[in-house]
Amino acid sequence: MREKRTKIKHVLSNEPLGESLTVMGWVRTKRASKSVAFIALNDGSSINNLQVVADAEKFGEELLRKITTGASISATGKLVESQGAGQTCELVAEQIEVFGEADPDKYPLQPKKHSLEFLREIAHLRPRTNTFSAVMRVRHALAFAVHQFFNEKEFFYINTPIITASDAEGAGETFHVTNFDLANVPKNDEGGVDYKQDFFEKEANLTVSGQLEGELAAMALSDIYTFGPTFRAENSNTTRHLAEFWMIEPEMAFYDLKDNMDLAEEMLKYLVKYALDNCADDLAFLEKRAADEDKNKPQNERAEMTLTERLRFVLENDFERVSYTEAIEILRNSKPNKKKKFSYVIEGWGADLQSEHERFLVEKHFKKPVILFDYPKDIKAFYMRQNDDEKTVGAMDILFPGIGEIVGGSQREERMDKLSQRMEEMDIPAEEMEWYLDTRRFGAVPHSGFGLGFERMILFVTGMGNIRDVIPFPRTPGNCEF
Amino acid sequence: MREKRTKIKHVLSNEPLGESLTVMGWVRTKRASKSVAFIALNDGSSINNLQVVADAEKFGEELLRKITTGASISATGKLVESQGAGQTCELVAEQIEVFGEADPDKYPLQPKKHSLEFLREIAHLRPRTNTFSAVMRVRHALAFAVHQFFNEKEFFYINTPIITASDAEGAGETFHVTNFDLANVPKNDEGGVDYKQDFFEKEANLTVSGQLEGELAAMALSDIYTFGPTFRAENSNTTRHLAEFWMIEPEMAFYDLKDNMDLAEEMLKYLVKYALDNCADDLAFLEKRAADEDKNKPQNERAEMTLTERLRFVLENDFERVSYTEAIEILRNSKPNKKKKFSYVIEGWGADLQSEHERFLVEKHFKKPVILFDYPKDIKAFYMRQNDDEKTVGAMDILFPGIGEIVGGSQREERMDKLSQRMEEMDIPAEEMEWYLDTRRFGAVPHSGFGLGFERMILFVTGMGNIRDVIPFPRTPGNCEF
Repeated sequence: MREKRTKIKHVLSNEPLGESLTVMGWVRTKRASKSVAFIALNDGSSINNLQVVADAEKFGEELLRKITTGASISATGKLVESQGAGQTCELVAEQIEVFGEADPDKYPLQPKKHSLEFLREIAHLRPRTNTFSAVMRVRHALAFAVHQFFNEKEFFYINTPIITASDAEGAGETFHVTNFDLANVPKNDEGGVDYKQDFFEKEANLTVSGQLEGELAAMALSDIYTFGPTFRAENSNTTRHLAEFWMIEPEMAFYDLKDNMDLAEEMLKYLVKYALDNCADDLAFLEKRAADEDKNKPQNERAEMTLTERLRFVLENDFERVSYTEAIEILRNSKPNKKKKFSYVIEGWGADLQSEHERFLVEKHFKKPVILFDYPKDIKAFYMRQNDDEKTVGAMDILFPGIGEIVGGSQREERMDKLSQRMEEMDIPAEEMEWYLDTRRFGAVPHSGFGLGFERMILFVTGMGNIRDVIPFPRTPGNCEF
Repeated sequence: MREKRTKIKHVLSNEPLGESLTVMGWVRTKRASKSVAFIALNDGSSINNLQVVADAEKFGEELLRKITTGASISATGKLVESQGAGQTCELVAEQIEVFGEADPDKYPLQPKKHSLEFLREIAHLRPRTNTFSAVMRVRHALAFAVHQFFNEKEFFYINTPIITASDAEGAGETFHVTNFDLANVPKNDEGGVDYKQDFFEKEANLTVSGQLEGELAAMALSDIYTFGPTFRAENSNTTRHLAEFWMIEPEMAFYDLKDNMDLAEEMLKYLVKYALDNCADDLAFLEKRAADEDKNKPQNERAEMTLTERLRFVLENDFERVSYTEAIEILRNSKPNKKKKFSYVIEGWGADLQSEHERFLVEKHFKKPVILFDYPKDIKAFYMRQNDDEKTVGAMDILFPGIGEIVGGSQREERMDKLSQRMEEMDIPAEEMEWYLDTRRFGAVPHSGFGLGFERMILFVTGMGNIRDVIPFPRTPGNCEF
């Protein structure tokens, strides 16, 4: 049946006036007078609906009664110039088939504004809303742009494992994976869990990051990236946290920290440009949506830039590269710090930066995206490369307006002695990490990489406020429906 | 440092003779005479090595001693025509830097043939071998081709959930996901597991398929696809099974079974063509590898076609479309059936087909890829569309040479009454599936979809024999290292 069908996106962009064609989709609204019904039809190919005009006498009351919000139909007819406001063309129906009805007394998505909270409860029907379908199309575009960017750069896509016995980074925030009957977990002679009887014959967890495995691949293939789900069993009910989220983690042999920053900046600009070039209609809708939401907020919480302005801000500015040490000086001497307007006042070197500080640097001080680098080693991970000052490591975080940190990365410590020493200091058990250390034993090279939380990026590009609204089925504490 | 570096792939394809350039990579082998050392350098960008020529006197014994198999170096010099056999150009080194050594007494990958079994034990170093790096590059190419194919067709990529409370399809073969301390699982008053205290406040599992959630998205966005990890806690130690594998599952509104077959055939041909067009060097290597392996097998187990012949067989033939009923007749009357050469002799209609039958149809009878359709409903899943004969469902499987079933799909049952009845017959609990049934209650449409196991496809395209060798870190019973 698909051969007969034209997607509404193409009807609206090509406007083949006078041609006869068939469209299929779901009814968004119907306005009916005695003589005619106007049906707004959407098939998910575009944020925009096609208006289908149905003559009341021709189709009869019985059929038209079935055409309600949420019903699915096929309509065949001629495309003509529209007489009404709001659209330039419309389809005058010659045939209509109703595939499936949607009882108005039961269908939850009636043509009115539903709260995002309510929509989360019916996540299985969310894609039928304007907001959510727009977000999903942008999500697709960004995912494709990620693959295209790295493919053009001759990076290889690597699927790092989801289930893993390695837990060096997880530190208690990992989910366990088991085949045991939880009502009856086998015990060993010492009274502990007898993992030997479990599917993997040892303790297994869901991955928190593919980086360490990605490094292994980069130490042979030079340039690789991962793009897969990662997991955090963190009991955080915030607008920024999910228990299951998608991460992009490139890892590059022979890259130093500067190369790493260059690549990350190039990638972020590529993604933003791809969305602007390919999602104009959806972004226009989302920009208006965000602006409408802002009207309900107090003045001081409203965004200073529109969605498009924020995207152009990233695209058109060179990211400011500032060392952590310089940034601390700027923050310490800043007005909000002196006036104690920050929730966390910056006292001096060594402090971990909060979102409020990151946003101050980006939005108030530099008025550019910012890359902070050379962080104190004590607030960063064991695998980051130690600088000669013995205080800092070659880490870099990229800060965006409205969102704070969007990318975190580093040059990796490739020197066996330095890495071993740091692991010992930080109580990382070397015996579980021999496979990782092997890449430092055999043919070690300078290398770097970074991580981008995919949903964070979608939040930024869509202007949505809650991370649960940019993933099809959000997993959070107490929440794994569908 | 990356700006100074040229990837070996480009050196070999462009051959900029006379130019000075820098390459970086890992030493595959070194042959040395008194006066000169020949270093075969690989950086993962290509199956082919670049020969670096180092003058013994110029670089001295101390440096050259460090250049052993597995060591990483940077070499700068002039590209010249090669005097030796086996390559057309070589780099005459003017500068060499050794990044990391690889003690020949400890480095496990010495320049000799290692068994695939041994390599699996050092999966973290596998990417440094010819075979495995070739497979990984083909894997990348196929993954990118999947995204490009669907993007060109305006499908949207949907990330269906990995952790899910829905277990309708899993039937006991799912992994449990929990935040409980397994040594101390909380019990409720009835003595059962108190899931209310678990992270998701209910029983949670790893997904076995994204199809059902994919259908939800297709019922709004029309055409979607998933590409993500899926899990089976099946205790199978075979060359075809993994506990963690990647699946591609497109789902299309307004597609009937024929549309579904057309799309699947088009996609498979697209992927094969993409590999032939983009992975010529790797496929040539893998073809030779497979042919060498075959020489060690008894005559009757050897492949009848070379790797390229098998790929062209798929690309150049229209897939033969045969109903299950016709196929059973063919099999029943076939020589191997009559002579009881099949392990499972086909007695009559209703039998489930084994790989031996599928391969007979493809390789002996039709000599084409085959699409079997309209299977007995009793051997297929509850969601497949029931045909008017009341015996069969609109299922389709695609069969490939050497591998049997590579794609399984169906038109989905969109009729609420038929679906409910079938779920009842098959003991699928409707109360847990209300979200799925909602898509039949509200605006149901005819729709179809299929699944392609990504690793099965890579097996076919690379000619590898064991599925554990086409994924970076295979997960199987007792196996989740790294």
